[in-house]
Amino acid sequence: MKKSIKKINAAIVIIGNEILSGRTQDINLIVLSKWLNELGVKIEEVRIVPDDETAIVHTVNFLRVRFKYIFTTGGIGPTHDDITSKSIAKAFNLKYGKHKEAYKLLENYYGAKNFNTGRKKMAMMPIKSSLILNPSSGAPGFIVDNVYCLPGVPSILKSMLGGLKNKIIGGKKIYSETISIKTVESEIASSLEKVQKKYNNTEIGSYPFFKQGKIGVSIVIRSPEKKIIIKCLNEIKKFIRKKKIRIIIRN
Amino acid sequence: MKKSIKKINAAIVIIGNEILSGRTQDINLIVLSKWLNELGVKIEEVRIVPDDETAIVHTVNFLRVRFKYIFTTGGIGPTHDDITSKSIAKAFNLKYGKHKEAYKLLENYYGAKNFNTGRKKMAMMPIKSSLILNPSSGAPGFIVDNVYCLPGVPSILKSMLGGLKNKIIGGKKIYSETISIKTVESEIASSLEKVQKKYNNTEIGSYPFFKQGKIGVSIVIRSPEKKIIIKCLNEIKKFIRKKKIRIIIRN
Repeated sequence: MKKSIKKINAAIVIIGNEILSGRTQDINLIVLSKWLNELGVKIEEVRIVPDDETAIVHTVNFLRVRFKYIFTTGGIGPTHDDITSKSIAKAFNLKYGKHKEAYKLLENYYGAKNFNTGRKKMAMMPIKSSLILNPSSGAPGFIVDNVYCLPGVPSILKSMLGGLKNKIIGGKKIYSETISIKTVESEIASSLEKVQKKYNNTEIGSYPFFKQGKIGVSIVIRSPEKKIIIKCLNEIKKFIRKKKIRIIIRN
Repeated sequence: MKKSIKKINAAIVIIGNEILSGRTQDINLIVLSKWLNELGVKIEEVRIVPDDETAIVHTVNFLRVRFKYIFTTGGIGPTHDDITSKSIAKAFNLKYGKHKEAYKLLENYYGAKNFNTGRKKMAMMPIKSSLILNPSSGAPGFIVDNVYCLPGVPSILKSMLGGLKNKIIGGKKIYSETISIKTVESEIASSLEKVQKKYNNTEIGSYPFFKQGKIGVSIVIRSPEKKIIIKCLNEIKKFIRKKKIRIIIRN
């Protein structure tokens, strides 16, 4: 039975052997997380699974009752390894077939003459799903319940988010501040931990960097409350001054 | 109870709020998958989880009985948000404490004078784990059973793989061939499906690309058997010639 999900969160399912094999670098996660952050939706888990029906069905069914929104990327094209639509139908025990509206859209996009078997396959999906329009290449994504299925090609995925915005009911926007300082993590670990303990509902992350011979640490504070971020930042600045650590940049 | 895992496969657990929030682009997965491919180990699942003990414990415990090797990345540094070591101890119900060998290594690396509290924390781990040496920055990773814990900083992770190679018993190396052609997926979908059906144990992937105004499709064939790849490739070339599609590159 479906639990009632109160948190405004999301999980992403990246579908594709090419990501697992290292052939392709995923760049959709960053696009989705930045877009969802703006809408006040926090991504709390990501899974990358192969083009395998059992893996997709299990993963989606596990996540969709635990997270408010599920986004899948990849596997909705015309070739044999594009099995997302069929797998989602199976996950929801819905009929998989020709989606009339999608078929019409694709027929108009390609013209009756060029609407070949491969292209017709892209109209095959859970027949009761609602569509996500695709302004760049015709073939739509689709939504079943809280599962939003998007393509894997980053430029196309990106172009489809605009039309999706109104369908996501987000929470409070999550703000973040980053301060980068010239030090190593071990020099600030205990001072930073004290600040974290004081502001225990605020996410404070510490990330060392080594860029072009420069070393340093970026401290990132994330919260839906701007005021809290400023307070945290001031406490951090206090111990930075005390330790005579140089601030490289704040953004 | 632990099932016996016969497949030579792996799962990756990427630990870090910074990856989920979109602040940081993960690039470790590509490094690990290419390295594991060479060793004949196939990555079959990846999960990205937050810096949260419950999430790490559940994820690792779920995966470690289902996959031959588990690699975690991130969360083994000196700050408060580095909780991988503690979480792994909890997952295995092992004592978390000062690892003598790691402590010695770190003390030698930093020198007794500079061996501060933060640095000492990096010697805290499941006390019965074996170490993964770190030639670039001292702090070791560690192994418990089939779980290999590596850092999140890509250059450091990369430098630690050499010392790990002998600990991985791989299977047959997986070879791959890619042929990129000037077409769209829907033009080749049904022909390619026929080849896939004939060679149903071979992984054939189709990936459209849109680069600098050029469009095309890369077909990737992956198998531990070089001969099968060549046979597949010849069948693909046959229909490409028939359809008068131009080959852009083969590699």
